[in-house]
Amino acid sequence: MELFEPLFGSPALNELFAPRTQVQFLLNYEAALASAEAAAGLIPIAAAQSIAAHCRVELFDLEALAKATRLAGNPVIPLVKALALLVSADDTSAARHVHWGATSQDVLDTALVLQLRQVLDLATDGLGRLAQSLTALVEQHRGTVMIARTLLQHAQPTSFGLKAAGWLTAVRRAAARIAAVRQRALVLQFGGASGTLSGLGDAGLRVSEYLASRLGLLLPDLPWHTERDQLVEIGTTLGMLAGTLGKIAKDLSLLMQTEVAEAVESRRPGQGGSSAMPHKQNSVGCAVVIAASLRAPGLVATLLSAMGHEHERALGAWHVEWETLPELCRLVVGALGHLNEICASLSINTARMAANLELTSGLVYAADLAGALAPTLGAGSHAVVEELCHKARVRGESLQNMAAQDPRIVAALTREQLREVFTTAHHLAAANRLIDRALQK
Amino acid sequence: MELFEPLFGSPALNELFAPRTQVQFLLNYEAALASAEAAAGLIPIAAAQSIAAHCRVELFDLEALAKATRLAGNPVIPLVKALALLVSADDTSAARHVHWGATSQDVLDTALVLQLRQVLDLATDGLGRLAQSLTALVEQHRGTVMIARTLLQHAQPTSFGLKAAGWLTAVRRAAARIAAVRQRALVLQFGGASGTLSGLGDAGLRVSEYLASRLGLLLPDLPWHTERDQLVEIGTTLGMLAGTLGKIAKDLSLLMQTEVAEAVESRRPGQGGSSAMPHKQNSVGCAVVIAASLRAPGLVATLLSAMGHEHERALGAWHVEWETLPELCRLVVGALGHLNEICASLSINTARMAANLELTSGLVYAADLAGALAPTLGAGSHAVVEELCHKARVRGESLQNMAAQDPRIVAALTREQLREVFTTAHHLAAANRLIDRALQK
Amino acid sequence: MELFEPLFGSPALNELFAPRTQVQFLLNYEAALASAEAAAGLIPIAAAQSIAAHCRVELFDLEALAKATRLAGNPVIPLVKALALLVSADDTSAARHVHWGATSQDVLDTALVLQLRQVLDLATDGLGRLAQSLTALVEQHRGTVMIARTLLQHAQPTSFGLKAAGWLTAVRRAAARIAAVRQRALVLQFGGASGTLSGLGDAGLRVSEYLASRLGLLLPDLPWHTERDQLVEIGTTLGMLAGTLGKIAKDLSLLMQTEVAEAVESRRPGQGGSSAMPHKQNSVGCAVVIAASLRAPGLVATLLSAMGHEHERALGAWHVEWETLPELCRLVVGALGHLNEICASLSINTARMAANLELTSGLVYAADLAGALAPTLGAGSHAVVEELCHKARVRGESLQNMAAQDPRIVAALTREQLREVFTTAHHLAAANRLIDRALQK
Amino acid sequence: MELFEPLFGSPALNELFAPRTQVQFLLNYEAALASAEAAAGLIPIAAAQSIAAHCRVELFDLEALAKATRLAGNPVIPLVKALALLVSADDTSAARHVHWGATSQDVLDTALVLQLRQVLDLATDGLGRLAQSLTALVEQHRGTVMIARTLLQHAQPTSFGLKAAGWLTAVRRAAARIAAVRQRALVLQFGGASGTLSGLGDAGLRVSEYLASRLGLLLPDLPWHTERDQLVEIGTTLGMLAGTLGKIAKDLSLLMQTEVAEAVESRRPGQGGSSAMPHKQNSVGCAVVIAASLRAPGLVATLLSAMGHEHERALGAWHVEWETLPELCRLVVGALGHLNEICASLSINTARMAANLELTSGLVYAADLAGALAPTLGAGSHAVVEELCHKARVRGESLQNMAAQDPRIVAALTREQLREVFTTAHHLAAANRLIDRALQK
Repeated sequence: MELFEPLFGSPALNELFAPRTQVQFLLNYEAALASAEAAAGLIPIAAAQSIAAHCRVELFDLEALAKATRLAGNPVIPLVKALALLVSADDTSAARHVHWGATSQDVLDTALVLQLRQVLDLATDGLGRLAQSLTALVEQHRGTVMIARTLLQHAQPTSFGLKAAGWLTAVRRAAARIAAVRQRALVLQFGGASGTLSGLGDAGLRVSEYLASRLGLLLPDLPWHTERDQLVEIGTTLGMLAGTLGKIAKDLSLLMQTEVAEAVESRRPGQGGSSAMPHKQNSVGCAVVIAASLRAPGLVATLLSAMGHEHERALGAWHVEWETLPELCRLVVGALGHLNEICASLSINTARMAANLELTSGLVYAADLAGALAPTLGAGSHAVVEELCHKARVRGESLQNMAAQDPRIVAALTREQLREVFTTAHHLAAANRLIDRALQK
Repeated sequence: MELFEPLFGSPALNELFAPRTQVQFLLNYEAALASAEAAAGLIPIAAAQSIAAHCRVELFDLEALAKATRLAGNPVIPLVKALALLVSADDTSAARHVHWGATSQDVLDTALVLQLRQVLDLATDGLGRLAQSLTALVEQHRGTVMIARTLLQHAQPTSFGLKAAGWLTAVRRAAARIAAVRQRALVLQFGGASGTLSGLGDAGLRVSEYLASRLGLLLPDLPWHTERDQLVEIGTTLGMLAGTLGKIAKDLSLLMQTEVAEAVESRRPGQGGSSAMPHKQNSVGCAVVIAASLRAPGLVATLLSAMGHEHERALGAWHVEWETLPELCRLVVGALGHLNEICASLSINTARMAANLELTSGLVYAADLAGALAPTLGAGSHAVVEELCHKARVRGESLQNMAAQDPRIVAALTREQLREVFTTAHHLAAANRLIDRALQK
Repeated sequence: MELFEPLFGSPALNELFAPRTQVQFLLNYEAALASAEAAAGLIPIAAAQSIAAHCRVELFDLEALAKATRLAGNPVIPLVKALALLVSADDTSAARHVHWGATSQDVLDTALVLQLRQVLDLATDGLGRLAQSLTALVEQHRGTVMIARTLLQHAQPTSFGLKAAGWLTAVRRAAARIAAVRQRALVLQFGGASGTLSGLGDAGLRVSEYLASRLGLLLPDLPWHTERDQLVEIGTTLGMLAGTLGKIAKDLSLLMQTEVAEAVESRRPGQGGSSAMPHKQNSVGCAVVIAASLRAPGLVATLLSAMGHEHERALGAWHVEWETLPELCRLVVGALGHLNEICASLSINTARMAANLELTSGLVYAADLAGALAPTLGAGSHAVVEELCHKARVRGESLQNMAAQDPRIVAALTREQLREVFTTAHHLAAANRLIDRALQK
Repeated sequence: MELFEPLFGSPALNELFAPRTQVQFLLNYEAALASAEAAAGLIPIAAAQSIAAHCRVELFDLEALAKATRLAGNPVIPLVKALALLVSADDTSAARHVHWGATSQDVLDTALVLQLRQVLDLATDGLGRLAQSLTALVEQHRGTVMIARTLLQHAQPTSFGLKAAGWLTAVRRAAARIAAVRQRALVLQFGGASGTLSGLGDAGLRVSEYLASRLGLLLPDLPWHTERDQLVEIGTTLGMLAGTLGKIAKDLSLLMQTEVAEAVESRRPGQGGSSAMPHKQNSVGCAVVIAASLRAPGLVATLLSAMGHEHERALGAWHVEWETLPELCRLVVGALGHLNEICASLSINTARMAANLELTSGLVYAADLAGALAPTLGAGSHAVVEELCHKARVRGESLQNMAAQDPRIVAALTREQLREVFTTAHHLAAANRLIDRALQK
């Protein structure tokens, strides 16, 4: 058990890429292959059954296997030897049918694809839950006015409902991308030693089809030993998801700042404390999500930069994927879990949102004021209001008061009109129109 | 004109991201916005026409604009000022309708999306041509036997047709990905200062629709000022394409090695020479493609790591995209151009392929031999042949001769059977079955 | 002039990597080479003089050169041809001595190193200015108490002087790293076609020494055509500098948030406005610095991932550096310029710092309280104060009041002792001790 | 035991970052801290002894610790609690002195620095061994002529000694960089909750000094909780080392290609076989080294992009380092081990090198020929030879024969002179001059 694994990963993911599970997936391939070859009439059904019966990870010495991997260069070579020995003890004649016509990469690639299928399923589940939490926040906060912030400065009023809707639409697109790549990229690898399936005579395609069907995978255009785009696309899809999760966590962590205090994570005892400061309530979850979003890009870049697989099997570029893709999966699914925990229990401090809106004494209505003046003052209204904002800042007065004393503005707007400028109602209405459209989709 | 631009880019791409073109795209937005607002009844039709009439880049001082950009932080702020001045000189009352309800990011983002549409079109064209060249190579070389190489060592016979088919399928998938992202990611940006469209009263959605339709873009779920996944997906798609192009160029460059000499680029006079060595014929094209495939991952990672846009407009993360996405486009489309040039004029040395196949004196049939022996020798046949290969290497003899002298093998196989093992026919047949299926798709 | 170049770069940097300057650096190499070879007695002095006389960029057609670069694969090949033609028109016999014994990479690499020397000088200057501004801030704000923030939450009191001292020490280390790499990595490239200098007979080493001395560069261990670590180290050094600048800009931008308002950038008219909102005062400088810090890592990764130069000259990996290193230089020196502008004119709002310290009603003294209680309450004091903090939060009371009412605390501490816990004096004293030591270094 | 760990890592490294060892390093900090505080008179000596006595990893439940880490956000918080409990059971009054004045980051950062010290030592050892092997290759192959290859094409003769010397100089520079960063970057972390050491009154600096001395670390300029350049520099240094190792492995793997066959790895039984092809002898070592060199850049970029630690403790950026730096260490030290194994047992096929030199029938002497003709034919000699090379290629004749029949050449060179052009002696002599200088350094 690695020290930080429970923090950054998720139980299901950590289990999925544990050596025991990984080896079982390799063995699943060997079992399905034997079964497919039996179905194609290439090997005896009894042999296939004997092989399948021994494709259970508990029959193998994992430590010996790991050691042998260093020498052989990949775990399939010693695993196949060990499997053949086991089968042989049971049914000598069956042993020679183990791994028939396949090559190490067929097994390793397909096992990875099978693991990735589960990763995509976990991501789909997690995104579904997240979309639910966010939809609830949108609905609940359609009327919660808050300040929109651009370049970390107060901009104009918006609603928390719209803010959450922005997150929600990105989460939905992420889910759609996962669904699309799941349809496209989960392909069988089966090409044999040099990618021609020549070891199976004219039965190659047939065995491929049986094998794909047994494993529930797509049949590829061709064996893809050195054309890695489909695998990498799973990586880029997860990478974009990490970015979306990171965006939400960053927003939340900024809202949780002591000075802002618009969002609070409910917390369990002991969560996010400090070894030194008894008053601390750190957002462990946000930290982990942001960390994942900072780590994913480098891993995606690694996958992309390792697409140049030489000829029919790469020297090194293939090996790059073995730990990089699982690591990426672990981080992204782990982050999704943390963000789900946060969003499911998030408290929004609407009073604080309302109070923060007032911090600039009305400067945040400057664009509204300029807009209201434009029919009278024309293109110059922006500059007039800019000047007024400057004065308001210097004198520490509210923009509304400054405006009420400015003869140009008094000439242009009635008191009632001026008062209307400094309200949030039309911002909220506009935000709700956008929310309505977004939720319909 | 930057010194290396003609080498790494393509004329169309370099033109597309030239400042003159970039500013014109910004102006196209302002013109379309005015038109959409006139259509929605928000501003007078005459004003929209006057604005549109001045949205021509030749009316602006680009150098002054670039300088003002440093101060303002983005080019839209000074551009809008300059445009309003121009319009004002012509029609004072129209000036205040310039940029109405929009914000800088609306303009910059949409202009980039419009440029990216052209990039995707250029990529689609280039991929179409590449697929054509590769299809021709596949058809032409269905019967061209060559050695498959794994981990840079001779593996087993394959055909050059199948090798090219591998490239082709990856190129087709890249084209399909470009087509898919083109359907999905080319979305309008329009949200106004804080993303609510509040400046347009209840006409915001209507103007959005008109504007999207005028620009030929999709209407987004919501303004996406700080949800960048759709933009980034264009980047990851181009990044995967770079990887696929790099894989092909790497294979070609390995085939072009002096010692291998299976592929030759036809070259124009002066192409790929050396300042020092009169005999050199370097593959400039492969170098550029490989360079692009090495540079793209870092740029994609940059885009991914800049997805954490704060709140309603990012402080820095947004600015990251402005040069990074164009750079990525330039490299990928440039590389595609180079690879198209190479593939359209590639010579394959089939004699050399045949000769190289013989370099190991038959070791490359070792798996075939083991396969043929398996019915008799069982699971141990692999080890028997391994031992024989070792002996053949040490003695410098052909594997076939060694086999013909080995009593175990003589007992198992007839002369005829043994001779058949050491032939390429069944490899070719297997390769062709795969090619047939791949081309049908 | 690229649209965003003035924003992200600096005038000196943009000039340094302009095509005109780049070509002049290439020509400087050719002139120095001829001079060194004349000094070594390899070529006539008159020939060297004639060559040098033509090594002026204004004599060359840069557009033609750029076009020829696409065909040739690098600019040196056509440049040398053009130079030989020019020399030949003047002195036929001298023409054959142009570029004698050198190869394109000798020229391109060394020209880049010469440019990098200027980059390092610009960085050194900029860091010197930054260190000065920061030292002034440290001195000025030794007594300015503010809240330290951990995980974006209020932690304990510190001083702005110490915060600025943290930035200062990192800036100093960056300067030291620049100085060290400047001593180490500015090495001549000179190896001829295959890196042996065989074209110069036994004069190779002598010419190398003369050439290095004329260009003011170090003599390398060996020609380093495909050992790029020294060049890459300049890149990693700049990359770390980008990170340090980004850290400072991020802190500043967080301090400038409307809700925090502890730092303000003085601004020139028109600086950091908005096209939509008249009240906006965005920190353009912070945005650019943060953008640079987000872009640098991808560029450094690109340099690192392109270190695998094949054999004696790389196919592609070398080409990667040509635009990547200049880009990195431009971003980092540009960011340094922006940060210098900010820091030279930064206003610190000490009143606001004092006010923000009070936001938690004393929770930020929780660790002090626990420390004061430890002699009496032992290891459990942390939990006692944690409980008290919770109560204070729930009741909306100050921690000091809560403490004053808690019998365990009343028993442990006198009123005077309790009052002392809730003061900043000892934090300030501790911060100043650290500042004193840091400034002495 | 992770499945691929033995392949990519090294036993010492895997052990160093095992949870058990990591926790022991955390405990070492707590023990040393207590001891330093006792020496400073802050806590009783007996308390320090009791604390130290319990700082043994075997006393802790690692699984519980890992689980608690998820909740707390880092392992120090639950570890300190568990330690205090243990101490308390033994000596109630000592428990409150556990972790006195420190914060989690002090412990985690310093523990990492202590681990990195061992990593640097392992790297230093490995580089020493590698330099030895390479020096031996240089000495042994000063006279081994081979072809230099540029852009993967035959260029000119060089020697294998010089090629190995190029590797050697890069390895030496890598070792020098490791030594320099070891002197500079191994600094204590100790700042307490907010980086002021305020918890220790006026004893903070004294305790720091004692603590640094006990742990054998440097005293930093200031606590560096959010200034990460020193830590990151260890990462960039390892990243450059990965690039250098990758360059050597790439060269070796290209030399080992079946068609080139100039280098052979001696192998143990079972090493680098194939699950399908009995004749395969894959270079597992080269694959692992190249994989590491492809993975390191992304990890370095991750470290660089996570330098923007907010204020006094980062929300996420800090967490990025916890797994990224160890991963980088594991890959680099692992790769170094593999490359050492290869280089210690490398066979160079000098006969094959000599044979390959002849593959182009003398084209590789084209530059020599042009050089010899220059005094007579002037600047045009390059073009003359270029033309001759073209003819030689087309006719399939040797360049020497073509030259001997060309009247321009016959007029310029005697037979003896011409013969001399087509020899390797002067290339070898030039290479040896460079080797001599390089080895002297």
